[in-house]
Amino acid sequence: MPYYIVVLGTAGSGKTTLSGSLREYLEDHSLDAAIVNLDPAVEKLPYDPDVDVRDYVDAREVMEKYGLGPNGALIASMDMLALKINDLREEIEGLRPNYFIIDTPGQMEVFAFRETGPIILNSIIGENRRASLFLIDGLQVVNPNNLLSSLLLSASVHARLAYPQINVVTKTDLIPGDELGKIDEYFEDPYSLAEALNSPGYLIWSKDEIELLLEKLMLFDVVKVSNVSGEGLDELYAALQRVLAGGEDYYTEEPNPVL
Amino acid sequence: MPYYIVVLGTAGSGKTTLSGSLREYLEDHSLDAAIVNLDPAVEKLPYDPDVDVRDYVDAREVMEKYGLGPNGALIASMDMLALKINDLREEIEGLRPNYFIIDTPGQMEVFAFRETGPIILNSIIGENRRASLFLIDGLQVVNPNNLLSSLLLSASVHARLAYPQINVVTKTDLIPGDELGKIDEYFEDPYSLAEALNSPGYLIWSKDEIELLLEKLMLFDVVKVSNVSGEGLDELYAALQRVLAGGEDYYTEEPNPVL
Repeated sequence: MPYYIVVLGTAGSGKTTLSGSLREYLEDHSLDAAIVNLDPAVEKLPYDPDVDVRDYVDAREVMEKYGLGPNGALIASMDMLALKINDLREEIEGLRPNYFIIDTPGQMEVFAFRETGPIILNSIIGENRRASLFLIDGLQVVNPNNLLSSLLLSASVHARLAYPQINVVTKTDLIPGDELGKIDEYFEDPYSLAEALNSPGYLIWSKDEIELLLEKLMLFDVVKVSNVSGEGLDELYAALQRVLAGGEDYYTEEPNPVL
Repeated sequence: MPYYIVVLGTAGSGKTTLSGSLREYLEDHSLDAAIVNLDPAVEKLPYDPDVDVRDYVDAREVMEKYGLGPNGALIASMDMLALKINDLREEIEGLRPNYFIIDTPGQMEVFAFRETGPIILNSIIGENRRASLFLIDGLQVVNPNNLLSSLLLSASVHARLAYPQINVVTKTDLIPGDELGKIDEYFEDPYSLAEALNSPGYLIWSKDEIELLLEKLMLFDVVKVSNVSGEGLDELYAALQRVLAGGEDYYTEEPNPVL
């Protein structure tokens, strides 16, 4: 049975790049992996998708055909995709990789925070094992308020999908070493993050309340990766295996699963 | 000094409709209110904006001019707007209403979860008093997982903006009475929501942990409104006054503030 890895995160967090790097990593380790592109509005992909939702719905065409603006076209495209879910699932089921990597739409909101996104995912994945990767733009979370915000957002996605989830801090190659050290410190000691939030703005929670919140928000595994250097992909694979297979490497009885 | 009300929420939560209803409500109570439309991609507005960001940047034009897809155009438009922030602020400062209602972009993600959105808001509002309204689609949160998810999302926006925030459950006229009663129960008793979450999916938190989380997530005022019947707008006004003016009605020394 294949494992499903759902790649989620806000626009610009690095979903598409990580999807490509992860397939390459798995293939380098003699594992078959197929990427499903679920974004009907993506213009360019750094990888060659095995299944491409744009074969079913293309957001730019939807815009032109129905005279919609960019917002309306994104939402209409997802709804139209939901109607074609059986064809899409059949195409996916025709492949037999060890891993499916599902690269979700650029705007997470159109997907994860509407009814259609979870319906599409559940329909594709069925009863198979799944993990979601929630990508956190590393460049943003050197700001402690943004880190708290991202952890809440990650938890919000988890509450809605109810999949086992791993937080992935991306773009670590672009973060100066001392800033990266601070992020590590925040994850190791939630109170240090609560302390660092002492910003000019107004927050409804006291530091102690934030620490309590963070303890619950940091229950997820967290992995830091760089798509450029490949650093962190070993840790990501290990974290995925813990979630998907209880720590064991992928094992298949079919000697040569065919894509 | 004017008060600033920032209307936030995911696509389809009712931001634009509430912005219009709220201006009408304030004007019916002899208060001047001006709406600033900050969405460069909106196609139709149910109100006549006092300031319209589309006079500065139009997402559809950005798409055509730069050959971008819908995703890219939304992001580029916000970044281009940030470059024109001084002109926009000057236009806004030329008005003298009691309240500014700031209607934010359809896709919250492009705005609140990138650097430009908070920069634009802080630049417009300066040192003035502000409150953000986080809109929660009432039809979605009859599902308890979606309610937990929405409360986490609201908290995520609050962590990033650090403005005093009120949660607003919208579309109450469309929710059957018994479902509405359940939502009330969830807000009154977080454990009843934790209990209701007993869904087929997998959640990382125990019920007790979810109750602890909810206690922190429910510190925000919550108001239920219907834009159709106007029900809840009195409560919303009262909640806004508590946040903006410590509970007092708007008072101005200028006898007739001119829009």
